[in-house]
Amino acid sequence: MREWKNILIFGMGLMGGSLSLAIRKKIKTAKTTGVVRSEASKDVILKQNISDFVFLEEEFFQNRKFEEYDLVIFATPVHSVIHHIQNLNSHSQTIYTDLGSTKKTIIDAVHKKFSNESHRYVSSHPMCGSEHSGPGAAKENLYEEKLCIVTSPNGLQSGIADEIRMFWEAIGCWTLDMEAKEHDETLAYLSHLPHLVSSLLVQTAIGNPVVNKQVSEAPRPITGGGFRDMSRIAGSNLEMWLSIFQENQNQIYESLKNLKSELEQVTEAFHPSHPLDRDRITEFWKESLLSKEKIQKTHEIY
Amino acid sequence: MREWKNILIFGMGLMGGSLSLAIRKKIKTAKTTGVVRSEASKDVILKQNISDFVFLEEEFFQNRKFEEYDLVIFATPVHSVIHHIQNLNSHSQTIYTDLGSTKKTIIDAVHKKFSNESHRYVSSHPMCGSEHSGPGAAKENLYEEKLCIVTSPNGLQSGIADEIRMFWEAIGCWTLDMEAKEHDETLAYLSHLPHLVSSLLVQTAIGNPVVNKQVSEAPRPITGGGFRDMSRIAGSNLEMWLSIFQENQNQIYESLKNLKSELEQVTEAFHPSHPLDRDRITEFWKESLLSKEKIQKTHEIY
Repeated sequence: MREWKNILIFGMGLMGGSLSLAIRKKIKTAKTTGVVRSEASKDVILKQNISDFVFLEEEFFQNRKFEEYDLVIFATPVHSVIHHIQNLNSHSQTIYTDLGSTKKTIIDAVHKKFSNESHRYVSSHPMCGSEHSGPGAAKENLYEEKLCIVTSPNGLQSGIADEIRMFWEAIGCWTLDMEAKEHDETLAYLSHLPHLVSSLLVQTAIGNPVVNKQVSEAPRPITGGGFRDMSRIAGSNLEMWLSIFQENQNQIYESLKNLKSELEQVTEAFHPSHPLDRDRITEFWKESLLSKEKIQKTHEIY
Repeated sequence: MREWKNILIFGMGLMGGSLSLAIRKKIKTAKTTGVVRSEASKDVILKQNISDFVFLEEEFFQNRKFEEYDLVIFATPVHSVIHHIQNLNSHSQTIYTDLGSTKKTIIDAVHKKFSNESHRYVSSHPMCGSEHSGPGAAKENLYEEKLCIVTSPNGLQSGIADEIRMFWEAIGCWTLDMEAKEHDETLAYLSHLPHLVSSLLVQTAIGNPVVNKQVSEAPRPITGGGFRDMSRIAGSNLEMWLSIFQENQNQIYESLKNLKSELEQVTEAFHPSHPLDRDRITEFWKESLLSKEKIQKTHEIY
């Protein structure tokens, strides 16, 4: 593996901050530099010693250049990543990547920027979000054992994808290559739809007056582990999710339509005009167990 | 608190088995007797020493009576609880309860059985299920810090509800009184709907051919913590859930209809014929965070 020396993390929220901690723990040769938008974030990073150096955005652009770093990691929402791709210097030796949750618009921006030139930009998606946000929530083990999807644009210089894969593996991730459109379609169902469903579920629950009254009056939460787990990610990190929804609007729309169609079939099985359709529910329930096991690659042990 | 001596747990799956372990740990005066349907369950209970005594159902009814116990706890699906309520001896000193996930049909059966007589049947719902089932999955701390909802039928003898509350508190639960219809409406939204939604989510995901191909080919699961948590309860314990769905069909139907209405509004915000409706999504997302905090009684700390 390349001996990484200077790594820039542009954007130091939960993901960027945790990555800085992980790099400092796992890649002893590297110094990390963080770039943030607010004085408040800068203070947190300094106080909690999250990176070796930290700049506000304006300080960074006045004093430093991306080309001074071995590796630049964009850890901001996708629309901001796309903005910075437009201004990259195509002749630098710097390797560029990002932590974007969607890929198609990033890869399109890379293709547009470099057109027929070869380049050193490879996109990454480490799947290790959390319902928390901000550098104060950073944890050095956030990336441990997590999947990092690697998406290579056309024109990527030979060997760069391998360097990035080795970087993520050094951090503690396992890696998988995925083409941009497949990534966005897969993630619509395995990440974006679940976040929307979590929010829909809490909104549906609170919309019922009896539930609203009961949860207001109870001294502690009236929920078992099921609801708690299902609602954990509701309403998390608005800015990040608006960006994801914007970038992946069409795939998410398709996933919501497909959910509605599944929902309508199950709802019909409960229609009060007839006894519960036990056969339909049984088939649905058994299939969902198999689907879960297929996706999670587990088998019930009891 | 009453000095419990002989406690019968009728049905020794995950819930009954875990309760037996908790009683033996927390209530040193009490011996537990379990009743099971299968030789396989009896073997597990004997081998793992889950209760002091164990009978197959037919052995139990040939040799024992409910009235020989201080406390009888029905830990079977609700339709089976209702069946046994019909055959209770109304003159015994035994206290009866159950672990039923729905209340209205149980309370109706108690009212029908005892009509104007006073009785000692109070219904319980400890909210501590799991995606696992069977006595082999029993854990002595399953009930620790969990909510147990207590529902008192008409005609309940004075002091019995207090005895049951103290029993659950001795086991480690906290208790809340709830009337049967309110219980079933509340639980439709906070437990039954989430279980259906978890199953709907995995079915929607696996129904997409790209997702299906990606999850089939990947060496490890392509999921972050969000999907993993959201899918954990999909397809769990068919027999128990069929029983719950049967007993609470109407309330669950209403909750599914309300979810569909919320889903349609959010889907419209993603319609590809216009740019993402950021205002609508922002309002929905912020409200869902508030709703989650209201239900879970937490506040985001970051």
